[in-house]
Parts: sequence; structure tokens; C-alpha cells
Amino acid sequence: MIDIDQANQTAVERMMSARPILRRVVRAADVIPGLAERRLLHAGPPITWEQASGPLRGALMGACIYEGWATDAAAAEKLLASGMVPWEPCHHHYAVGPMAGVISPSMMVYVVENTTHGNFAYSNLNEGYGKVLRYGAYSEEVLNKLRWMNEVMGPVLAAALEVSGEGIDIRALLAESLHMGDEGHNRNKAGSLLYTARLAPWIVRVAPDSDTAASIIKFLADNALSVLNPVMAACKAMADAGHGVAGSTVMTTMARNGTELGIRVSGLGDRWFTGPAGAPDGLYFPGFTAADANLDIGDSTITETAGIGAFAMAAAPAIVTFISGTPQDAVNATLEMYEITVAEHTAFTIPVLGFRGTPTGVDIRKVVELGVTPRINTGIAHREAGVGQVGAGLTRPPLSVFEDAIVAYAATYLD
Amino acid sequence: MIDIDQANQTAVERMMSARPILRRVVRAADVIPGLAERRLLHAGPPITWEQASGPLRGALMGACIYEGWATDAAAAEKLLASGMVPWEPCHHHYAVGPMAGVISPSMMVYVVENTTHGNFAYSNLNEGYGKVLRYGAYSEEVLNKLRWMNEVMGPVLAAALEVSGEGIDIRALLAESLHMGDEGHNRNKAGSLLYTARLAPWIVRVAPDSDTAASIIKFLADNALSVLNPVMAACKAMADAGHGVAGSTVMTTMARNGTELGIRVSGLGDRWFTGPAGAPDGLYFPGFTAADANLDIGDSTITETAGIGAFAMAAAPAIVTFISGTPQDAVNATLEMYEITVAEHTAFTIPVLGFRGTPTGVDIRKVVELGVTPRINTGIAHREAGVGQVGAGLTRPPLSVFEDAIVAYAATYLD
Repeated sequence: MIDIDQANQTAVERMMSARPILRRVVRAADVIPGLAERRLLHAGPPITWEQASGPLRGALMGACIYEGWATDAAAAEKLLASGMVPWEPCHHHYAVGPMAGVISPSMMVYVVENTTHGNFAYSNLNEGYGKVLRYGAYSEEVLNKLRWMNEVMGPVLAAALEVSGEGIDIRALLAESLHMGDEGHNRNKAGSLLYTARLAPWIVRVAPDSDTAASIIKFLADNALSVLNPVMAACKAMADAGHGVAGSTVMTTMARNGTELGIRVSGLGDRWFTGPAGAPDGLYFPGFTAADANLDIGDSTITETAGIGAFAMAAAPAIVTFISGTPQDAVNATLEMYEITVAEHTAFTIPVLGFRGTPTGVDIRKVVELGVTPRINTGIAHREAGVGQVGAGLTRPPLSVFEDAIVAYAATYLD
Repeated sequence: MIDIDQANQTAVERMMSARPILRRVVRAADVIPGLAERRLLHAGPPITWEQASGPLRGALMGACIYEGWATDAAAAEKLLASGMVPWEPCHHHYAVGPMAGVISPSMMVYVVENTTHGNFAYSNLNEGYGKVLRYGAYSEEVLNKLRWMNEVMGPVLAAALEVSGEGIDIRALLAESLHMGDEGHNRNKAGSLLYTARLAPWIVRVAPDSDTAASIIKFLADNALSVLNPVMAACKAMADAGHGVAGSTVMTTMARNGTELGIRVSGLGDRWFTGPAGAPDGLYFPGFTAADANLDIGDSTITETAGIGAFAMAAAPAIVTFISGTPQDAVNATLEMYEITVAEHTAFTIPVLGFRGTPTGVDIRKVVELGVTPRINTGIAHREAGVGQVGAGLTRPPLSVFEDAIVAYAATYLD
């Protein structure tokens, strides 16, 4: 007989003891296992061109132009619709990307090593705000910024990390930023400053000239999401450490492609359980309404999977000015998540809850039994390709994906 | 008949509408009104050599050696005890300094301009942790660091501020850092990162070489109190804007010299009301106990005077790991201060209290009526000259200084 509780403890203890160190910045195709040339990665579970939403299509098209495989949007669309450029989930390659999550072969990626268990995870560089590829925009301005990020900033970050020696402990950085009003998903203001301040002296030393150094430091410092991508890679490294424990009902993946949301479960291998992605409820930028919103999209729910993000919202009461609600709602969000999780995180604590550990390791049994689904903090993309971000808010996955996973679990372990 | 409430509203509205902009870094004797050569400024109300505590004596002696007026501690002590080098309160010169608060003529100081009312305020550069002059240490290591700060870092900060153009709005920076777990006095972790990130790109551009730029950025980034001194100057500029309102019972100065604590009141001119400085209750660094502690010292209570510090402690629950207590104590500290203040700050808000403004403008009538004195967050200095910081904690001023001020108020306005 399987001791499910014991299996879950093993899974969540592996997640919490994982120590994710940001080691390097490297060209994606040179480091991500299985990312061949002329192939794209994207957020969420697998999806066809026909099913793909506007922002995902836009980001895939933009990546084709960025890589020089197509000269314009029409050509890029043709290339993708014809199957000449295949795309696969980031999660199939130990990678994660925010929003559309598109990673193309020549983009630079962060390399995070879990030094406790030896696994690696990857994420791309954060583009900042405004019109950006991850929200499906692909204008010349968007692509020029990507070129600067990957051709100018990326090599400097790589050299800065290399000369700094020991790498950056992202779990320690997150623990600190949760004491500074971040929740690690939608609010990474403190974490991004900690990250920038840590790297800046090294950037100064390795940059080709002072103007380049100043531009890179300013780009990182002005973007309150600079550290989101290293944080996501760290959460992926932690979640992966808890994956594959026989008999465990702990959720180890939750991701959305803009059409569907998918989860994976520690004891159920690499099988996805998918359902419709949610419609976020939140605050919109001036000139936009819910009618403009795409369904929920992105791998960034790896943060909630690892015990931060919406699960740590009590640590980030100021976030409600950005995503709606009151500070008490933020506290309640965290309290509710204790109902469906296995453990309280040993590294991530919440001062206002008396330094209680964040709720960590969603047990799909509890989700189904209580009908309480995980909470998600998210950005909101415009539904059409080429526009960008229109707001930020809250959503949840469909209960059905957890029910489907329970059925599969029963078939696997209890027959 | 005087409308005291109206006078207090005027005073506190002037404090809250003051907009303190960090403009420049300049040699003290070149910018602080009345700071002649061969003269020192110090924290708190006026004090004689005989009354001065160990850390204040140590800092004054260190400054004499730093300025080249004495070659060693014995010579410096002789110089000071003989009255050859006079010292005056920073507050008599629109200035403030943390702990011993010693400012000597050739030290670089921050210049903050209140653009609403046109007054200026000044503070020195923060030395970071360990053995530092402000805690009464004066070894060669301490003086060498001061030389580097004032001769290498200071001119670069001055040039960086100058080329950045618009100055730094410290009130806006504080408003943001209060949403990031700071209270602005003992916890300035987020504010110091915001400050460092804001200046770093300019430091890179103006520094003589990349090693110097890297060293300065690292010094600022590693010191979670980097922004304390600009914050204190900003609070001084705000508090001074509320000073001198006829009939007002609002406290506009609270400062300690390590022996006595003194307050001044908006409607009572430049007269000090003094009493014994408190013995801080807090946490000690390894190897030290309360027996090593000096009495409370420093001008940094200008933060509480302006509505932050201990008054904003609810915004900074993580601070309790440093100064003792629980997160609920931190909330209670702020709630109590609403009882003795005139207003809720319009710029400084506390997310966990539903974005309520911080308690601002201590009314000495309420203090005496309720017997509730202002709370103070503070660092703890060793009682002997030359040692340094031994802990951090909480204290209060003696009730008697408020009673004395009420008596003086009655004599001035009600006879």
C-alpha cells in the first residue's frame, strides 16, 4: 500500500531543500537540452497553431523574424502555420518563460543549478514593460530591444556572473525580498533591486565601456521584473526536484499557453492534465477593458507551484494597488492556500503572519476534496497579436484538471 | 485667543507638503550656514565635555584626528577638553547626523532642498557597519574609511547628482520604501537599494575609472543604511518647515547626545527642553549585553519627528528580527502613535493598515495628557569611546521634557 502522505512529504522536502544558484547566461541553443536550431519553445502545455491565442501567435511570429527566418509577420505566420518551424513547451526542456514564454535558439538564457540535487533550469531575459515579445508584440521597436538585450546586455551579464565567482543564491534572494513586500511573481520590485545591486559592481568591471555599463544597470534597475526570469528558473529547479516521487499527489507544474492551462503531478510522470485557461479578474491600464483580455498565459505560475506568488501574497500587501483588492484580501489569499498545501516553506517566511512559512506543495487530493483551486497572480495580455500588456490581476485554474489528475492517479496507483 | 488646533494643522500641513529634494553633495564648511573652520557639529542638544558620553567624546576626538588638528587620541582629548575646538548641535545649523552625529568642516554633506518652502537641510555620508565614527570609534581603519568616503566617493556622488539633473525626491523614495518593508529609521534596506539603483548609472558615467565606480556602487549597495542620512536631512527639511508656527504645540525636533534628549516645539522658538536620554531595550550583538550600552544617542529621531521610523513600524514587520518584539508589536507601535499625533501623513502610507497615513506631528499636549511618549527605534552604541555599535532596540524620551515644554507654552501663550 502506498503511503501518499509520506510520498508528498518527500516531494515537498525535495522542493524546499533545493538550492537554486544562478550560474550563467548562455545562448539558448548552446545549453538547453533538446533545443535544436530552427525550433521554438513556448509557455504552457502543448498547443497547435489553430488553437493558439493571439499573444502566443504574435510572440512565435516575432521570434521567427528575430531569428531571421522570416522577413515580416505574414511570412512568419506562413512558416509557423505550415509546420516548417516547430514549437514545444518550455517545460519539456527544463525551461520556463513568462507570458507567451517564447525562447528562440539565439536568445540568451539564465542557467540555474539546483546544487542540492544537481538538476538545471533555464529562463530567458526579462524585457521590461510596454510593447514586448512576451505579450505578443513584434514591432521593429520590440525586436530592436530584444537584439540589444541578447547581443549587448546578455554577454555582459554572462561575464559579470562569471567574474563574480560564486553565482547568486536565488532562494536566499527570494527569502529576503519576501521580507521587503514582494510575493515573487507579480511583484518583484525588491528582488529586482537586490539582483541589480548585486551584479552592478561586476557589470561595471566587465562592460566594454562606461556608457554600456550605465545603460545595462539602468535597464535592470528601472525594470521591477528584472529578476522574475531568474526567479522562475529557480522555482522550476525547485519544482523539478520534487517531481517524479512515486505515489506523490503534489503538483509540480502549472502553466498556461493562453488557451489551456495544464498541470503535472509528481507521481504521474510527464503527463499533462489540461483545461481551459482562466479569464483574469483585475485592473486594466487606461484605455483597456476586460473585453481586450486574452485568457491566462505563461509559465510564471511556476512561482505558485513552488510556494510563492499568490501563495505568498500576505507578504506583499502593496500589490493590491496593481492587481485589485485590499491588503486583507492579500492575507486571506495566503491563508486559503494553507488548506490545499502539504507544507510551510522552511526558507520563505511571511513577517505579518509571525514569520510563518509560505504554503508550499499543492496536494491535488485537497484541491478536489475542498473544491479550492490554487490562486494565481498574473499579467493580462491583449487578445490580439502585436499589442502587449493591458493589465494585471488574479485567476484560478479549472477544477477539472485536478479531477482528471485524481482519476489518472487512481488508475495508476489504486487499481 | 489662540486656536491651538488650527496652529497645529498649519504646522503639520507644512511638514507634509514639504518636498525634500536631494540636490548636491558639498564640503560641509562650504555649504552649512555658520559652520566655520575648526569647529565641530554633533547630535542632540548642547552639551559640555564633562557631560559628554563615551561615544560622543570618541567621535569628536576622531574628527579632530581626521581633520589633522590632533595626531592621536590623547592630543585630541586635550584639544577638546581645553575648549580649543568648540562643538555645537547639528540642529543649530539646519543639519542632522546619526548617532554621535559629528560633522567636521572637510566632510562632504548631502544638501536637501525643500522646494515647497525653500529651506535647506544637511547630513553627512553614511559609513556603513562595524567600527565607525558615528558610534565613537576612531581607529586608523575608521579614519581611512572616512577619507575614502569623503575624498573618493563624495566627489563622485556630487558629480553623479549634478549630471543626473533633477535631484532625488526623498519623500517619494520614502513613500515607496515604506511599501517595501522599511520604516525609514532603523530599516532602510529597500530605500538604500532604490537610492543606489537610481545613482548607479550616473556613478558609472562620472567616476574616474571603472574600479572606483564598482567600489562606490558596492559600498552603497552593501550598506542597508546608505540612504539613512539623505532621509534624515529630508526629515529635517520637512520638520523645519513646520517649525515657528505661532501657538503650535507640535514637536519639531527630538534629538539625543548620548546623555540628554532634547525636544523643540513649533510655537516655542529655538528653546530646547531636555531630560535624561533613555536606556534602549533591544537585541545585542554576540558578546555584548545591556551593561555595555550607552544611553540613547543621535539626531536620527528626526525620522519619528517627521512621521516615520518607529511611527511607521507597522510597515516594517521584518524589523523585529533586528530590534526585538513580534510583528504584532510593530503594528501596535504605530497604532499607539496615532493617539499623540495631529495628522495622518498624506505621502507616507502603510499597506497593512489599509494604506492609512503614518501618524505625524506629535502634539505635546496629547503626550502629557495621555502619558504616552513618542516611540523611538535606535541603534545602540558602546558606552566607551572607540568601540562602536553593540545592538539595536527601542526606547522613549522622558515624559518630563514634554511637561517642561507645556509649562513654557503656558508661560508664553496663556499668561
